Amino acid sequence: MTLALTGGYSAVQFRYPAELSLTVRKIANFCIGNLICAQYRFMDGHYLTVAHWEGDTIMKKINIEANTYVYPNPVTLVGTEVEGRANFMALGWVSRVNAKPPLIGIGVNRVHYTAKGIQETKTFSINYPTADMVEVVDYCGIVSGKKVDKSDVFEFFYGYLKTAPMITECSLCMECKLIDTVELPTNYFFIGEIVASYTEEKYLTDGKPDIKKMNPLLLTMPDNSYWTVGEFAGKAWSIGKKLKK
Amino acid sequence: MTLALTGGYSAVQFRYPAELSLTVRKIANFCIGNLICAQYRFMDGHYLTVAHWEGDTIMKKINIEANTYVYPNPVTLVGTEVEGRANFMALGWVSRVNAKPPLIGIGVNRVHYTAKGIQETKTFSINYPTADMVEVVDYCGIVSGKKVDKSDVFEFFYGYLKTAPMITECSLCMECKLIDTVELPTNYFFIGEIVASYTEEKYLTDGKPDIKKMNPLLLTMPDNSYWTVGEFAGKAWSIGKKLKK
Repeated sequence: MTLALTGGYSAVQFRYPAELSLTVRKIANFCIGNLICAQYRFMDGHYLTVAHWEGDTIMKKINIEANTYVYPNPVTLVGTEVEGRANFMALGWVSRVNAKPPLIGIGVNRVHYTAKGIQETKTFSINYPTADMVEVVDYCGIVSGKKVDKSDVFEFFYGYLKTAPMITECSLCMECKLIDTVELPTNYFFIGEIVASYTEEKYLTDGKPDIKKMNPLLLTMPDNSYWTVGEFAGKAWSIGKKLKK
Repeated sequence: MTLALTGGYSAVQFRYPAELSLTVRKIANFCIGNLICAQYRFMDGHYLTVAHWEGDTIMKKINIEANTYVYPNPVTLVGTEVEGRANFMALGWVSRVNAKPPLIGIGVNRVHYTAKGIQETKTFSINYPTADMVEVVDYCGIVSGKKVDKSDVFEFFYGYLKTAPMITECSLCMECKLIDTVELPTNYFFIGEIVASYTEEKYLTDGKPDIKKMNPLLLTMPDNSYWTVGEFAGKAWSIGKKLKK
């Protein structure tokens, strides 16, 4: 139950019925008996003052399990040579980690065949499949190179590094030299320097990779779904300038 | 120029006119004078044999700069307390890095105010904005907490950790305890354990965060554009099963 009122400045502790106790701060409040009045400030300078009965749930945040994921993961194929043979694994746990030099990191389970290959050759590749490759990408995430020879799944090529196979039909291929391995409980986090990247003219706009032409895949876990990229939503380092005071 | 033929098995070195010399392997080939015949094998077992004149460019891969990015980055807001005040920064360099316990890593430039906060409190939060928050997200990526007090930009709350402010209007908030810092040339890669995650019923389907209800943002660099998530493209660890032999 809510009621519009005006109020002065202070800080207030809201208690929730769930196990979670949330402190909402930087808001104005005052009390009339067990009626708590809170003033919410919005970015545009507009204020809204609302009264809550003590004990009311004003925000229904719920605590879900800690094992949540990134929304969404990009979908890549990691190329390695393991025991002298090319292998490709689907991977979503990837991020740039350093600006200069360009470093990229990947989280790979310690038991994966790909981890063995990266440790052997100190090289790997990151390849961006197009959305129409979804079946073969998923196949590379289902079968292990330990049991199945995946060297004939794709046409591939090599660049400067001679042990980082890159996938011809992928829209963008990065060849990476291992520079650091972070040992974590179940995974390795391999950090590689991108020594070169390969694409085709048809994927570029103004000389830069164009995500709508690349048409890559996204992955969500734990619902285990692939997605495409949707609509343009604004220019970064630009659309927020109007909020500068 | 190409010509369809059939051929036997071997390996062939293709030379390209650019600085890039690519070895295409695991394909059948034979030569008739300076005509090279290559047999391409597709996943469905179908073969295509094509003849190339020696020196022809059969694949127009071009070597672009090494400083390429992840397609796409997820868009998050990192919450920290710096010098006792809440601060929020837009961040796309994020990935899960370990399965159990659930670890997540973020690449943060060493000069960012957020890096100072994480080092001070050993905690941080990862918050997923909805697409309609694009302006305020971008604002948090443009202005530094060193110069502008961003503690009044959002309503925020705390969970178990008392120094990881989480954003009320975000669809999913993860509170993280710092467990490792990887020092890289221009950036820190902070690795945190997710101790709890908070969402609202309206963002869940079957108890799991639903990306279409969350409606998060994506970011591409260096074209610096935000995107939304598009269409469902298949079930992961499932759609590729049909390719198993």
